[in-house]
Amino acid sequence: MKKIKHETHGGNIYRASETFNVKIEDIIDFSANINPLGIPGELKHILISGIDDLVNYPDPEYCKLRDNISKYLKVPFENIITGNGATEIIFELFNVLKPNNVLLAGPTFLEYEKAACMAGVKVEYIELEEKDCFELDIDKFASYISRGLECLLLCNPNNPTSTLTGKDELEFIIKHASKNNVMVIIDEAFIELTVGSNNNSMVEYLEKYSNLFIIRAFTKIFAIPGLRLGYGLGNSQVIRKMWERKLMWSVNSIASCAGDFLPLSGEYLDMTSRWLAQEKKWLYEELCKIDNLKVFEPQTNFILIKILDDLDTNILGDKMGSRGILLRNASNFRFLNSKFFRVAVKDRNSNLILVNNLKEELFNI
Amino acid sequence: MKKIKHETHGGNIYRASETFNVKIEDIIDFSANINPLGIPGELKHILISGIDDLVNYPDPEYCKLRDNISKYLKVPFENIITGNGATEIIFELFNVLKPNNVLLAGPTFLEYEKAACMAGVKVEYIELEEKDCFELDIDKFASYISRGLECLLLCNPNNPTSTLTGKDELEFIIKHASKNNVMVIIDEAFIELTVGSNNNSMVEYLEKYSNLFIIRAFTKIFAIPGLRLGYGLGNSQVIRKMWERKLMWSVNSIASCAGDFLPLSGEYLDMTSRWLAQEKKWLYEELCKIDNLKVFEPQTNFILIKILDDLDTNILGDKMGSRGILLRNASNFRFLNSKFFRVAVKDRNSNLILVNNLKEELFNI
Repeated sequence: MKKIKHETHGGNIYRASETFNVKIEDIIDFSANINPLGIPGELKHILISGIDDLVNYPDPEYCKLRDNISKYLKVPFENIITGNGATEIIFELFNVLKPNNVLLAGPTFLEYEKAACMAGVKVEYIELEEKDCFELDIDKFASYISRGLECLLLCNPNNPTSTLTGKDELEFIIKHASKNNVMVIIDEAFIELTVGSNNNSMVEYLEKYSNLFIIRAFTKIFAIPGLRLGYGLGNSQVIRKMWERKLMWSVNSIASCAGDFLPLSGEYLDMTSRWLAQEKKWLYEELCKIDNLKVFEPQTNFILIKILDDLDTNILGDKMGSRGILLRNASNFRFLNSKFFRVAVKDRNSNLILVNNLKEELFNI
Repeated sequence: MKKIKHETHGGNIYRASETFNVKIEDIIDFSANINPLGIPGELKHILISGIDDLVNYPDPEYCKLRDNISKYLKVPFENIITGNGATEIIFELFNVLKPNNVLLAGPTFLEYEKAACMAGVKVEYIELEEKDCFELDIDKFASYISRGLECLLLCNPNNPTSTLTGKDELEFIIKHASKNNVMVIIDEAFIELTVGSNNNSMVEYLEKYSNLFIIRAFTKIFAIPGLRLGYGLGNSQVIRKMWERKLMWSVNSIASCAGDFLPLSGEYLDMTSRWLAQEKKWLYEELCKIDNLKVFEPQTNFILIKILDDLDTNILGDKMGSRGILLRNASNFRFLNSKFFRVAVKDRNSNLILVNNLKEELFNI
């Protein structure tokens, strides 16, 4: 069977199963940052009942789904576009905006650069520095805005650094960008997986700033990466152009049903917040106890880690993989190297297995 | 609620329900060409059991799905690409081939022109003429091949004309095209809905002609247009380039499970053939009995019809819509006009309702 090389992302348990000769069901996947509370029961029922609707084409305007998102985040219907994961939104946004350039703060999610390149958009980077624990330097970032920049994109919280930029700082950027006709895209794919959840979102600023575009996803928070459902929130002109351009029916009808869970999601979101506050802290502290690792304090459900001794993350990843534990090799993120890896925060039992196995591997060398 | 204007396609029961003030469940939809035998029971079970897998990202290489397709059509794994409906395949194919021009035989499916335009490909048309019952004139078509043409695309059976071009004629075209370095794309989205099913497919010629690319879909035959699952079959170089370029994970994991039904699909395909042979003939003959209609003999599960009197298809469509019966207004197909509409062949009871209501409307005017 011939294999095709893909960009390395987390979550490819199929290839890992083959590579490490471990059954898929025996893998503990720390490489994908998915809510370990799993698919909410009510959501599962909604999806199952959607199977009978497959006999019809999806609504090309996804009215019901957009209504649900509209109520969930108090954003008008005409400011919402839905897509095949956040990824489709990113790609279509660049295709519609067609800026000459985009500024990214790296290390960050790989698909931004790929999407920009495919749309012929020049990518510029500002480096998030290790000495700052990869926190965004707002003044430095703002200083780029008047230099002929047309667009900037921030991932907040940022992947893979797990840093979160505050709302006041972001508003400062957006306001400054607005004066300079610069579009600001904020990817909030993980925002519900921060302590504070939607309170950390910039959604409320959409009305005030027409140069703000927010990308969101159902993927991580509701533990449904297989479903492919993301959305974009922005000014109605950009949204309309995206609807005109995009692939018809790219969200399948089962995925579009997931919106029906939003009005019922309160309890699940609360449970998630409680788990996150507790487990993020626990895992961070336990990892910090391992001598030859430098652990960056996380603001969301994943942790960036640097190996301080001679060991390479490829080797560690292979060794852990053979134990059925998948790490996200972070060496293909710009500005990182083969010392970095990323792990998801999971349930206590899994986290304990991770810590114990890391200790064994690191002390056996 | 603001509405977005879309390209007119069949199957938008959501808008129809609003426009005609008819409940969705009371609509009989002749505008979408879906197998009326409905989603096979075993397929439904497979899809339901796929819901638990949503917690994982789809396999980015869709190995299992491609293996199933490979066995179903006896096409090697590396010659298969899967996509979000046949539509994504068409769009990505143009993006990868980037020919200067493409020749279409119209009237035909609208998305080809849209996809070509978005990829900057010049579209040329050869007209399928009403006097020929919209049959493809092979010699005329072949005569275009040496005039600087780079690509041609045929829908077979063709939508909306329901004509089927034979394999020998198609091979003549492909061979001639091959000598002139012209790529031949054949969209076989409806091929399993012809009498003869896969025997009418050009799949067996893929090995012989590297300039042949075939587009297929699960949509129509298995009555799952909501699932979004199509695939492309072509030479491994083109396929590899498409994999490199395309949106990651565009087929969601539930959709990718549908391939597991292929090895079990024999009986359902046989039942479909029996229904089609009988019902296509019956509906065609009944429609022919209505005086002021010209009915074009169908080769697949839909029928193109021309109104011979003063009536406009928009008016007829509205009147039938108010009765809960959706027709496909065919006036937006190039070379057709507001006298044409298309209907799907459905189960006997629905077909009878269609015929009776058409008679009532046409004779009441």
